[in-house]
Amino acid sequence: MSREVDVAIIGAGSAGLFALSQVRRKTENFVLIDGGELGTTCARVGCMPSKVFIQVAADYHRRTIFDREGINGADSLGLDKPAVMEHVQDLRDTFVDRTLGATDALDEAHLIAGYATFVDDHTLEVNGEQYKAGAIVIATGTIPIVPETWQSFRDDIITTDELFEHEDLPASVAVIGLGSIGLEIGQALSRLGVEVTGVDMLENVAKLQDPVVNKLVVETIGREFPLWLGEAAQLEKTEQGIRVRSGDKEVIVEKVLASLGRKPSLDRLGLGNTSLQLDAKGVPVFSPETMQCGNSSIYVAGDVIVDRPLLHEAGHEGRVAGYNAVHQGAVAFRRKTALAITFCDPDIATVGAQLDELDESTIAIAQMQFAPVGRALILGKNRGVLRLYVNKSDGLVLGAAMACVKGEHLAHLLAWSIQQGMTVFDMLKMPFYHPVIEEALQGALYGVLSELDIEEETVELEKL
Amino acid sequence: MSREVDVAIIGAGSAGLFALSQVRRKTENFVLIDGGELGTTCARVGCMPSKVFIQVAADYHRRTIFDREGINGADSLGLDKPAVMEHVQDLRDTFVDRTLGATDALDEAHLIAGYATFVDDHTLEVNGEQYKAGAIVIATGTIPIVPETWQSFRDDIITTDELFEHEDLPASVAVIGLGSIGLEIGQALSRLGVEVTGVDMLENVAKLQDPVVNKLVVETIGREFPLWLGEAAQLEKTEQGIRVRSGDKEVIVEKVLASLGRKPSLDRLGLGNTSLQLDAKGVPVFSPETMQCGNSSIYVAGDVIVDRPLLHEAGHEGRVAGYNAVHQGAVAFRRKTALAITFCDPDIATVGAQLDELDESTIAIAQMQFAPVGRALILGKNRGVLRLYVNKSDGLVLGAAMACVKGEHLAHLLAWSIQQGMTVFDMLKMPFYHPVIEEALQGALYGVLSELDIEEETVELEKL
Repeated sequence: MSREVDVAIIGAGSAGLFALSQVRRKTENFVLIDGGELGTTCARVGCMPSKVFIQVAADYHRRTIFDREGINGADSLGLDKPAVMEHVQDLRDTFVDRTLGATDALDEAHLIAGYATFVDDHTLEVNGEQYKAGAIVIATGTIPIVPETWQSFRDDIITTDELFEHEDLPASVAVIGLGSIGLEIGQALSRLGVEVTGVDMLENVAKLQDPVVNKLVVETIGREFPLWLGEAAQLEKTEQGIRVRSGDKEVIVEKVLASLGRKPSLDRLGLGNTSLQLDAKGVPVFSPETMQCGNSSIYVAGDVIVDRPLLHEAGHEGRVAGYNAVHQGAVAFRRKTALAITFCDPDIATVGAQLDELDESTIAIAQMQFAPVGRALILGKNRGVLRLYVNKSDGLVLGAAMACVKGEHLAHLLAWSIQQGMTVFDMLKMPFYHPVIEEALQGALYGVLSELDIEEETVELEKL
Repeated sequence: MSREVDVAIIGAGSAGLFALSQVRRKTENFVLIDGGELGTTCARVGCMPSKVFIQVAADYHRRTIFDREGINGADSLGLDKPAVMEHVQDLRDTFVDRTLGATDALDEAHLIAGYATFVDDHTLEVNGEQYKAGAIVIATGTIPIVPETWQSFRDDIITTDELFEHEDLPASVAVIGLGSIGLEIGQALSRLGVEVTGVDMLENVAKLQDPVVNKLVVETIGREFPLWLGEAAQLEKTEQGIRVRSGDKEVIVEKVLASLGRKPSLDRLGLGNTSLQLDAKGVPVFSPETMQCGNSSIYVAGDVIVDRPLLHEAGHEGRVAGYNAVHQGAVAFRRKTALAITFCDPDIATVGAQLDELDESTIAIAQMQFAPVGRALILGKNRGVLRLYVNKSDGLVLGAAMACVKGEHLAHLLAWSIQQGMTVFDMLKMPFYHPVIEEALQGALYGVLSELDIEEETVELEKL
């Protein structure tokens, strides 16, 4: 038996749900297929619980400034770690419940619980039943990477999919992999009293391309817990715990947090039965502007693409895939200006083009250290740096990298400015309040003026 | 004896120094005249020390969320008030020192210590010496208003010019005047353990025009300390302290914080000797685009205008006045989009046009309550509201008012967007990260779509 539908969406996570929102503007003849637990990666194990965890760590860490501010008794503060975890879980459950609203409203003719396998480019099989679909959206997400060699002590490994299920925290943890997630969770664990050692085979953390920003991050966070960079970690189970070696350093820890990244959930899809061309990771080759795979009626969206595993990108991709799944011809849409934030202290953020995408001979780098930024000094957080990449010829701002307090907000201001094609001169004509962190951006913009090939007589003023 | 100079600037505060920066691009034949203590209002008694004070109060207040987060021992925290004040003074001194850098570098031929009086439109007298100036910039700033009837117990009155000089805090304070400064200092005092009563003859605080935002602020801050609104305060000295009456309410307090606003420092200027037309407050009538007073060679800048007593506006006005003082013809410059922030918790901010400037029949109001905003919930600060004023016909965003966590950053994003003429549709195509407070703006923008006269097929997506 086979059902015919206009669209089949595989995966009821964020990208699938955003795709669905577009599909339903045109048709109710769809199926949303999901074989796992409902609720998005973002709400269940990603953005949301991690931000709660990080917030508690930040609030607890803030006690280190109390003495300077005239607040007594910081030494009397302590942590009830099970209570911390319960707080994280309570809020997480709230967020998961919200995402379930979208699927709760679907009947069993629309929401299919099971794993889909491609029969051909237009046919899926789920639980023994076939679905012929006019268009198919693949939004199956990712699963954490745990190396094969670690499987013999899998119980000692925690992935971020599992961390927030724990009712208590281990005494010591090695964080293997210092991308955004490893670095932010590692710092939070450390601030919550866990003995943390961070290890990464790369010298740069949080995927930073900018050496100045990376150096500041490594030095600043490295004062809170050791960061072992540049050599791969070797793990070995011992009676005392897991021995972690990196170069000539070693430590024995209770648990290992595996934050080596996530791999696309593609194993069950049977993509070999389609006409699709696959890349080295097994992901269908697709257009980032249409989300279409080759010339097929198959679209991809969300983390499964691996490229930009961020909720707002999954939203964008889901919308584009969903739109094109119900419209003739694959319409190309402009990608949003790249924006990535690591919720460490200091915030780490990158916006627009990064150094590996730029020709350094044609750009000037606007740099502002946070030491003299008044508001940062008031916050006791004036260790930071902001770097802007600016076209020398016309002052166009192309990208930025930063590690600084309130970086998440500066990053939005910059992303919007870059997406609108603003130059250094345009930005200096905008209002900067006082005393605010945005003045660091103003400082960076002023600083780069002398390095540009053009100049304006009244930089901050616009003649009427 | 009389000296001839190209430009005389009266007042070495922020506006005067910004004017000077423009003047010195053209001439070194200037005098900067100041009769008071050097250092700006901003650094000495305004923006900077108040922000330090507010930061300590916010950090101390944060303990109220600790129990919920699993952090023990909040009850053991206490305040060393003299240490708090010392911290405020230490940082303030740092900021004052920086502003002195600009005047320290001037010799006594350029920096004149004394009060200037106009002899005529081109002539000033200072310390018995006359200066004939091609152009004159008035940037004399303001002084706090203290009613004449309070002078008999002046020692019990504290102005914000004096507050940060104190070595300790009083046990109880009535804050009279709940504009931005009164409200933010009142809340900080309350959080630092002072018994605070706030009084204002108006029903709206922080100059808010928006009734929804005002209501939220009054209710939220009113839970921390009483706000007596709508009737003027009557003060009377008693043996127990100052009796403050407002309508049928009364309280006896140790000190009164006078935050009734500031008045322009014009008394010594002898403006009657000029040809200038003066307004009801005695401020010369001027053009906000050129800062020129009538057709004279006299310009005004900064708080003395009373209209926009904000550092960044003083900076803008100072630059325009300084530019025009050394250029032929008064060049008109575009004013920046209005941006005002009150550093309370929640932040209060207004951007662009406010309701009293708008025709409500032609606008739709985009409103977002913060209760469901994920990041606000994580921060434990989801009591807030954001309101955007949008042109119904084309979706142009005209203004905004808000009271919410991180409002200062949302306000910048909105001010820049409004200054660039962005519509609701333009803004929805920008990146919004997750989970961030900026998503509240996204929510407001979505919410108003159905109230606009126009629609777009792909609201969040831009076709290539």
